[in-house]
Amino acid sequence: MVEMIDGGVTTPQGFKATGVHCGVKYRSLDLGLLRSEVPAAAFCAYTSNKVKAAPVQLMIRDDSPTLSAVVVNSGNANALTGRRGMEDAQSMKDSVAIEFGIDPKEVGVMSTGLIGRFMDMHKIRYGISRAAGELQEGRDADAAFAEAVMTTDTIKKEAAARVRLTDGTLVYIGAISKGSGMIAPNMKVLQGTTLSVITTDAKLSPAFKPTWQGILDDTMNMVSVDGDQSTNDTCILLANGMAAGDYADEDPEFIEALTAIMEKLARTIAIDGEGATKLIQVEVINAATKDDARKVVKEIINSPLIKSAIFGSDPNYGRIMMAVGNSGAEFSLEDVHLTIKGGDMEVPILDSGAPVFQEERSVEVVRMAMDNKEVTIVVDLGVGSESAVGWGCDLTYDYVRINAEYAT
Amino acid sequence: MVEMIDGGVTTPQGFKATGVHCGVKYRSLDLGLLRSEVPAAAFCAYTSNKVKAAPVQLMIRDDSPTLSAVVVNSGNANALTGRRGMEDAQSMKDSVAIEFGIDPKEVGVMSTGLIGRFMDMHKIRYGISRAAGELQEGRDADAAFAEAVMTTDTIKKEAAARVRLTDGTLVYIGAISKGSGMIAPNMKVLQGTTLSVITTDAKLSPAFKPTWQGILDDTMNMVSVDGDQSTNDTCILLANGMAAGDYADEDPEFIEALTAIMEKLARTIAIDGEGATKLIQVEVINAATKDDARKVVKEIINSPLIKSAIFGSDPNYGRIMMAVGNSGAEFSLEDVHLTIKGGDMEVPILDSGAPVFQEERSVEVVRMAMDNKEVTIVVDLGVGSESAVGWGCDLTYDYVRINAEYAT
Repeated sequence: MVEMIDGGVTTPQGFKATGVHCGVKYRSLDLGLLRSEVPAAAFCAYTSNKVKAAPVQLMIRDDSPTLSAVVVNSGNANALTGRRGMEDAQSMKDSVAIEFGIDPKEVGVMSTGLIGRFMDMHKIRYGISRAAGELQEGRDADAAFAEAVMTTDTIKKEAAARVRLTDGTLVYIGAISKGSGMIAPNMKVLQGTTLSVITTDAKLSPAFKPTWQGILDDTMNMVSVDGDQSTNDTCILLANGMAAGDYADEDPEFIEALTAIMEKLARTIAIDGEGATKLIQVEVINAATKDDARKVVKEIINSPLIKSAIFGSDPNYGRIMMAVGNSGAEFSLEDVHLTIKGGDMEVPILDSGAPVFQEERSVEVVRMAMDNKEVTIVVDLGVGSESAVGWGCDLTYDYVRINAEYAT
Repeated sequence: MVEMIDGGVTTPQGFKATGVHCGVKYRSLDLGLLRSEVPAAAFCAYTSNKVKAAPVQLMIRDDSPTLSAVVVNSGNANALTGRRGMEDAQSMKDSVAIEFGIDPKEVGVMSTGLIGRFMDMHKIRYGISRAAGELQEGRDADAAFAEAVMTTDTIKKEAAARVRLTDGTLVYIGAISKGSGMIAPNMKVLQGTTLSVITTDAKLSPAFKPTWQGILDDTMNMVSVDGDQSTNDTCILLANGMAAGDYADEDPEFIEALTAIMEKLARTIAIDGEGATKLIQVEVINAATKDDARKVVKEIINSPLIKSAIFGSDPNYGRIMMAVGNSGAEFSLEDVHLTIKGGDMEVPILDSGAPVFQEERSVEVVRMAMDNKEVTIVVDLGVGSESAVGWGCDLTYDYVRINAEYAT
């Protein structure tokens, strides 16, 4: 029983945060700082893009098992910035470490924004020193931290949950995320530009890593706005254990709550995809393998033809089967069932390899289902028992406008 | 020495063609017919999408080594049409066979248009019978055939060449192609919706197949408008041998001419990509493997972020390196050189893993290079000696408009 609550990164015990404007961006908040009262077990996952931003490279190199603070800036990704970028990312860690009297390795660092420009470290250092003096708990602090991380995002992405563990301990999970464009994360623990910070006062051991990877693979790694994986994707889960109690590593209530939090963030990123007017949820069922199910989901949510059709509520469902055919998944066309859902409507499309609807008037039913803020495509491959769910958004005039003008 | 000439499918000896309007589409020509005086050695390549249109399935099943005629309709793809679709495709072959008194297996069939609607065979049969009586040679016939194949295409895609073979024989090659959206062909000989018909009066043996696959892999299979491979892609090369002379299978002049023809078609498809305002040519050099080089080309030409940036002449070249990093190709960032060319400008972008330009004024140079009808991106991976070239187009408001309204 997951109880979702109104909250953010400072909802769990022992976390404070803030967001300030230091001038990387012209207006809006651009530097966020989060502090845990005690060192928190850190579970970090990073982009699998071979071109990794400087802060990502640094975090992977340090591979610190615990973190006491996380600093994030928006407006500049510090990616493709060579040696100087590495020095700047290190300097961000150092500045925070000095403020709090901690080891720089205890400081998580994330950047997001334009790729290929050097950071203005005067602004960043000013921001860190100001933020360090303004840390707070509560919804205002949550909001400021969440806003400082945003780039082309139009909505704040927060989630929180309260969980009663099996041993009776009451723990909290709080989370923020950002991401609107260059979104197709494939983040790997141990080694996404969506940035996420999840805080919890539950206790977690290093053995939680594979479970964390599994949750990411089913949630954040199943979102795609444009199929372009960023150089900066990073997801940091901080567990400071201040709620006491047993390790929550295998606690089904905790895992369910964390999964629900991550799924909410993932859906919100898709809803807020650059220029998006609609959320597209794709469910693939009865696939031969989990990998097949995920491949079909991704082929559909990344197809510009399908995304454009959904934008226009154009019942061009043949494009969905085009994508299924390109996925590489195993199936026989005769056994595939395709259903499009929107609002109260649930419209079957395919029967024995041919469309159910042929006449213009009946095709209109499909258009009505597609003419909703949330469109769900269900593909039953009819060949096995594995399934996957993923989230994307429609391709709109605004996506083109935003990305034809980003650097300027 | 390839001599490109003004010509089309009836330029080589022994080919006649026409295009008629039979009513599948509201106006414009929608049925094309091509006839070879003698059976022509046929080299066919088809989409590798697992969901194959009925005519593609039929052609693969018959796998006829020679063809005497090719019938093509536009407006309806006869894809996702189940058993009835197969019957309709066979009926197209049969109708042509009856007109010419030949075996239905000797008739090539191709369809392009909307997916998931049954064909109106009354219209198609009327069209075939009319076209059979109107076959001609010459530029008007070429043009009618080329137009009958078009869907969202805005320009006719024709090419022709005259080649003096090593043995002195003078042969001709003529070609047409169509394709504007759902373009990311990966056509395989022996087993793309771009449809192409290439005619030649040269003599070719079955041993020419691997050479043909190689030419397709370097030309048509390196075009991408939207990364979505069609259910209908088909490419038919007909060699009727009427110029006499030796087999041209290994004739370097012939191979060079055919490659030039196919490259011209490929570039024209990219230029005429749905909504496109610019051609993007991507050259990857010094890759470890040919496969690496092709992967980098495709990752770049399929990135909606890069395509949108080029539409807006937005110098956001960080996105190019984002794509290189996602390609899976082997490289060290420090060794990579990136150059953007447009008009007379050739602008180096990366030096030792960091951008050359940092100031707004100098970045303006990149914008100027990008502000051309043809933009070339050169990625030197600095790790090997393999290379690849590919073609795509920008992502524009019109692409979204066209594809949000296609079925209607």
